Amino acid sequence: MIAFNVLTIKIDNSTMKFYLKSVLTLTTLFFISTSNADNSANSAWRKLALSNTVLLTLPHGKVVIELAPQFSPENVKQFSGLTKNGFYDSTKFYRVIDGFVAQAGPKDGSKKDKSVPLLAMESEWDADSKWTFTPVQQHDLFAQQTGFKDGFALAYQASKDKLAKAWLTHCPGTIAMARNNEADTASSHFYFVIGQAPRYLDRIMTIFGRVVYGMQHVQAIQRTEVVEGDDAVDHRDFTNIVSMQLMSDVVEAERIHIEVENTESTMFAERLIKRRARESDFFYKKPPPVLDVCQIPIRSRRVK
Amino acid sequence: MIAFNVLTIKIDNSTMKFYLKSVLTLTTLFFISTSNADNSANSAWRKLALSNTVLLTLPHGKVVIELAPQFSPENVKQFSGLTKNGFYDSTKFYRVIDGFVAQAGPKDGSKKDKSVPLLAMESEWDADSKWTFTPVQQHDLFAQQTGFKDGFALAYQASKDKLAKAWLTHCPGTIAMARNNEADTASSHFYFVIGQAPRYLDRIMTIFGRVVYGMQHVQAIQRTEVVEGDDAVDHRDFTNIVSMQLMSDVVEAERIHIEVENTESTMFAERLIKRRARESDFFYKKPPPVLDVCQIPIRSRRVK
Repeated sequence: MIAFNVLTIKIDNSTMKFYLKSVLTLTTLFFISTSNADNSANSAWRKLALSNTVLLTLPHGKVVIELAPQFSPENVKQFSGLTKNGFYDSTKFYRVIDGFVAQAGPKDGSKKDKSVPLLAMESEWDADSKWTFTPVQQHDLFAQQTGFKDGFALAYQASKDKLAKAWLTHCPGTIAMARNNEADTASSHFYFVIGQAPRYLDRIMTIFGRVVYGMQHVQAIQRTEVVEGDDAVDHRDFTNIVSMQLMSDVVEAERIHIEVENTESTMFAERLIKRRARESDFFYKKPPPVLDVCQIPIRSRRVK
Repeated sequence: MIAFNVLTIKIDNSTMKFYLKSVLTLTTLFFISTSNADNSANSAWRKLALSNTVLLTLPHGKVVIELAPQFSPENVKQFSGLTKNGFYDSTKFYRVIDGFVAQAGPKDGSKKDKSVPLLAMESEWDADSKWTFTPVQQHDLFAQQTGFKDGFALAYQASKDKLAKAWLTHCPGTIAMARNNEADTASSHFYFVIGQAPRYLDRIMTIFGRVVYGMQHVQAIQRTEVVEGDDAVDHRDFTNIVSMQLMSDVVEAERIHIEVENTESTMFAERLIKRRARESDFFYKKPPPVLDVCQIPIRSRRVK
């Protein structure tokens, strides 16, 4: 019987205090995790709202994206509106670099492209004293602290003289708005991260959602960039978006209902502790007790 | 005109000294990098030996692997021998987890499976005072220092009372031997890393090569694990290895000749400096000047 502490970080301006949220035994946890499926605070799973979920249909498979209006409200609003109007249907993934990103949108400079208003950045926010998240790792390469909130990987940085900042981090499966060189120039073009987390893009790109289902189909999108010496890919072979719809606009028979792990649950905090400890016999030598926030899969499951 | 220093780490037992290898201007470098294609120490590109390169033919595309006998001699020897004998032809990728690994090998416990001798781990080595590498980053989450040697990402850790250790790191495209719980139990099963670097497997798995061409085809291997609530994948749909051959055994017309960036070159060291600085106008706010060793693509090109 292993007792452990579940920690939640509560931000107290420039310092971080760790509050003991609860102390439970593993036995209790296992009981809870096998017996619940509702949406309460202590639930292991969280059901996604249909109106906050997007169904991306590719020629080779279906992908579900959870939007993040709590972090990027204006970008989500515009993306949802475009999606609702069928804006992305028949657009193509025109910039797909293996190990990096798969980017889609209308033809650059086209009437359709120019019809969309520019968006202000929503790439970080002030973390005031009331703001909390589930901590993962102190001092990774790019931030003072990483963690999760609502299933999204994020980072946090305190400041001596100002409010702390927090931001969503680029991990595989992240969806973010593309832009020109200037900050507030995103409109409709977006990209999925399909390789090792390009964390250097954190805080300077607006992340507005993440893939919660069908990531293997995102990985199978036709690459548009090839190595030197290989034939260029014909643009007619670029992967097409068959349709992009809000799940709430999809007929019930074709909806994909998704639940994801509740990263605010005691069960999830316990999983982090176990993942860090690597207690399985497989680890005949123990790795360092650290966690890369982008290397922790947040589980999804399909429900009726 | 920006002058810069190219650094190579030379290991002096438990301390790390940085030796100034050369001081060049960018102008000089650009001249060099556009005018060479040979295999000398100052060359930007390195041609791979056919006998040290493997051609993996999948139903949907061709993949080239560079082997690493300088780091894992016995594992490479066994893998090369099996490959030469057609051992992997018609075996399947039976454990493919999106964002993690694609693992292949003969049927567990079969005669073919048992016919292969067990291998001792070759997952790290003593880094004596003569051992050098191209440094990338100090103090990442998992190691004191990361870097490259011969195109392979690696890490280094000094020790107060013993020789320093170095090891190849798990990055996307890494190929390593699978094993049972005990250390020295690898035989023929192997895996590719297809997601965020699982660095916690460093030092406890034998990495013996990396994908240098066709990684998008590795990413398109049929996943065998699905989310809860989805139908299981029929094992008849698992991706098949059409053939695995040493490139030197392939007829000339079907060979894929690859050159990769020479990570020991001054040009490469310069690229690291530029990548860290993020000087493009696109970075309207500068990211932290750090580099994730698994997020630095080592370029390949195809030659005649």
